[in-house]
Amino acid sequence: MKITALAGGVGGAKLVDGLAQALPPEKLKVIVNTGDDFEHLGLRICPDLDTVCYTLAGIANPETGWGRDEETWNVMENLAAIGGPAWFRLGDKDLGTHLERTRLLAAGMTLSEITSRFCQSWGIRQEVYPASDDRMPTYVDTEEGEMPFQEYFVKRRCQPRIKGFRFENVEQARPAPGVCEALLAADLVVICPSNPWVSIDPILAVPGIRQALSGKAVLAVSPIIGGQAVKGPAAKMYTEFGISPSALAVAQHYEASMNGGILTGYVMDWRDEDQVEPVRALGIQALSTETWMKTMQDRLQLAEKVLAFAVLLVTSRDD
Amino acid sequence: MKITALAGGVGGAKLVDGLAQALPPEKLKVIVNTGDDFEHLGLRICPDLDTVCYTLAGIANPETGWGRDEETWNVMENLAAIGGPAWFRLGDKDLGTHLERTRLLAAGMTLSEITSRFCQSWGIRQEVYPASDDRMPTYVDTEEGEMPFQEYFVKRRCQPRIKGFRFENVEQARPAPGVCEALLAADLVVICPSNPWVSIDPILAVPGIRQALSGKAVLAVSPIIGGQAVKGPAAKMYTEFGISPSALAVAQHYEASMNGGILTGYVMDWRDEDQVEPVRALGIQALSTETWMKTMQDRLQLAEKVLAFAVLLVTSRDD
Repeated sequence: MKITALAGGVGGAKLVDGLAQALPPEKLKVIVNTGDDFEHLGLRICPDLDTVCYTLAGIANPETGWGRDEETWNVMENLAAIGGPAWFRLGDKDLGTHLERTRLLAAGMTLSEITSRFCQSWGIRQEVYPASDDRMPTYVDTEEGEMPFQEYFVKRRCQPRIKGFRFENVEQARPAPGVCEALLAADLVVICPSNPWVSIDPILAVPGIRQALSGKAVLAVSPIIGGQAVKGPAAKMYTEFGISPSALAVAQHYEASMNGGILTGYVMDWRDEDQVEPVRALGIQALSTETWMKTMQDRLQLAEKVLAFAVLLVTSRDD
Repeated sequence: MKITALAGGVGGAKLVDGLAQALPPEKLKVIVNTGDDFEHLGLRICPDLDTVCYTLAGIANPETGWGRDEETWNVMENLAAIGGPAWFRLGDKDLGTHLERTRLLAAGMTLSEITSRFCQSWGIRQEVYPASDDRMPTYVDTEEGEMPFQEYFVKRRCQPRIKGFRFENVEQARPAPGVCEALLAADLVVICPSNPWVSIDPILAVPGIRQALSGKAVLAVSPIIGGQAVKGPAAKMYTEFGISPSALAVAQHYEASMNGGILTGYVMDWRDEDQVEPVRALGIQALSTETWMKTMQDRLQLAEKVLAFAVLLVTSRDD
């Protein structure tokens, strides 16, 4: 079974890692959100791409899920000592990635070419694609005005109340080479447990990607467990939009954002067992299981659950 | 006595440091070579400025004389691991300087404003000026063709035989604000023991700087000791130009490059005692002493020798 996963940062990367452990490398392709990407200190930073790649390479920080393992912070410390902006903390090892990516972009390479090159260096055998090679930065509309995503997310620690999102230039963005092909060739598309608003929606907003999903078996894994996000502001965002954060709300979100009928299957946490029936009432096959990935082993276990469920889904669709 | 020093990298920085120990901070100003400056990985690197500032701040690597103390190399190591160019090794702490300088240049600040700001952060109380805020990169003409200075110096380890130098755009370069004033206000200008060809000549080539030296008491310290350069390619350059490298040759170089009569005094090493008379024959007052600065104490001792000699020079000129 060929799987193509859509992923944002830490949560998505963990399931991608589980899938990578469970599948032969040629059976898994990953499309990663680029809406969070931004320019800082003259460098192109791609937080989700790097989190997915570092995780797949086994060189991610196991504590935080993002950034590099055994990281040092000498650049930032010395930059701060001369008055430089230290609100977005970049580790030393991590900076090697940003400097080289920025250099190659300036030399004319595309983000997807660069990502492919880095994956090879890091020994990653799965194809990893940025959603687009075109810039499509997410802006967050808040009660304090609109701000770039990382300013909202890191500098302001998600404090300002949210009113909406804008993916700048996304109408002009083209899917990166290989993205649509990876979706069309997949037996199953897995929407990883990432933030629906700012990790998955930007991918789906790239013209062509949503169309490539049409008629595909699509399985989403809920990032909301017991009304909470494991990490990040997803639950807070739902609340500020006047929606009670829940696994059900996420399923409804994907159905609405993709004009209905998109989800074939949905994997939700056992703590949200009570929402299995409401999800099924949307016409979606639902499975409740342990989805909280605390250990490396948890990643593989969830991936195996997802794959077993997917076999059922794909088979029943073929009938 | 007000001293303004002209300096390149390591050797020059050591004497500047000695002078800083010997003089009240307001009595010493330093003009630093910017011909070595270059762009690498999208960053503006100013090797001589940083060496002088790190040295004055007491945060230079005591082993090499350049770069930061207790440096780490995680950025470069990880950049190299993904195929990035590692021929010019930039330490992690050092990179904090380059990133912030590049950010401030992009924001519209001048190199001299940035240098002044960094000096303040580092607790440097002397005025340190780049020779110019305008780019004036040194190119080395060799038997293998012309190449940017750092490519010759670092990548090619000074291997190609030299035919000449070119300071690109130097005719259009303006002295940085404060440079000419610092020269005009000085009781004595000290040319530090730096490479005459690629550290001091670029400073003197900035229109206005040479003129500001006219009629001043100028004292140079020889960077050549016993026919050798303590560090760097100065001796090799003399040889390749068909000149026997010597303290005398350096004195002749400054006299020739400044159309004669520029040097009032010359401090040379005791190992070159035999050249004292030939230097005096050029009409220059000469002193031979220990000039090899191996320890922190040596820096102060040489500075004190220079200052004592300068008192004689300035007094005898006033007579």
